[in-house]
Amino acid sequence: MRIIDTQRSGNCWKVRLLASFVGIELRRTTLSIDRGDLQSAGFTAIAPMKRVPVLELDDGSLLSESGAILFYLAQGTPWWPQTPIAQAQTLAWMHFEQEQHMRPLAPLRLHLALRKDIAPTDPRARNWLQEGHDALAILEAHLATGRQWVSTDAAPSIADIALYPYTRMSPMGGVDLGRYPQVQQWLARIEGLPGYEPLFPGQPHLNLSTLETSG
Amino acid sequence: MRIIDTQRSGNCWKVRLLASFVGIELRRTTLSIDRGDLQSAGFTAIAPMKRVPVLELDDGSLLSESGAILFYLAQGTPWWPQTPIAQAQTLAWMHFEQEQHMRPLAPLRLHLALRKDIAPTDPRARNWLQEGHDALAILEAHLATGRQWVSTDAAPSIADIALYPYTRMSPMGGVDLGRYPQVQQWLARIEGLPGYEPLFPGQPHLNLSTLETSG
Repeated sequence: MRIIDTQRSGNCWKVRLLASFVGIELRRTTLSIDRGDLQSAGFTAIAPMKRVPVLELDDGSLLSESGAILFYLAQGTPWWPQTPIAQAQTLAWMHFEQEQHMRPLAPLRLHLALRKDIAPTDPRARNWLQEGHDALAILEAHLATGRQWVSTDAAPSIADIALYPYTRMSPMGGVDLGRYPQVQQWLARIEGLPGYEPLFPGQPHLNLSTLETSG
Repeated sequence: MRIIDTQRSGNCWKVRLLASFVGIELRRTTLSIDRGDLQSAGFTAIAPMKRVPVLELDDGSLLSESGAILFYLAQGTPWWPQTPIAQAQTLAWMHFEQEQHMRPLAPLRLHLALRKDIAPTDPRARNWLQEGHDALAILEAHLATGRQWVSTDAAPSIADIALYPYTRMSPMGGVDLGRYPQVQQWLARIEGLPGYEPLFPGQPHLNLSTLETSG
């Protein structure tokens, strides 16, 4: 199997994280946004939804959307829970991530830290920051009920992976994670799991912000 | 089982559609946004993600997020496909709907047709309209490959249900569906399925726009 990704995308990081945690070997084709790869005709042909990541299966078929790729790769592993209700709760948190959490936190990081084309005082940035805090407060309250993982009790699931990257990178957009002690402990639990892979392998994730903005 | 919903929400409509198609009897508690029900403490207690719909199971446990509810209710029915790759493609289109399709089309309808608090010439409305057209063009191109249904060949799946409401209601936000003949035929196929239930039962869906803005 092959993953078509970009280096900095949080959605692509999710797939590499799961692959590393479960020991799936993925060939990797890394595209460059700066080079315009995502606007090329070749990319549109393999990614009708015009997004990375895309998973290419061994039979050549293609699967888009990080959440769907996580689902597919997690089948038969402990990262996809066994009961329908636990599976549904896992999907609920994955939808929450895409719709309420990533939606403000991804553009906040993109425009403030990567492209640097919007000021923190811009009304759009203020709005993303507020919505990002709303989402993180929901995650904090959920974890504060004494649970170790987001959707399951005994072990982490793909919901934890889905929520991890844009939470971890949210300080790049100006989010103070100090407000969320439960979230911080949960981040540390994920980073302590065997196989954890930082966004830039070989670099400690604590330097993420510097690497991101310079890379 | 009980569904906690609102009358006009496209995400809530999805759940009622699936229940009607598969013949699941759901008790229903319908909240009023106008009355402020979604800001009440009682609502926050059952909906930590602060969104409708919420499914209450017979054991009292609660499930949020329309996509997760569709997944749960479709288990064991033909609306959830059988192979992992078909399941993953179904989830991919459901994520596409939430992230690229509903994200612009829902606020476009909300602010132009329901609240009427943003003019069609407002830059935000223009942006939602453009992004909505981008998403509908992706759906049109996908259906133009000769397929009857979005993620499966032989029968509709919950991906069709997920994509239906905000496509169907997009003309309320100023979208001309005449540009998308494949999408229009697909809408008609869904509306021709046994058990199809309009947003306002007893009213023909062609009057949707009038009902919505007056109700």
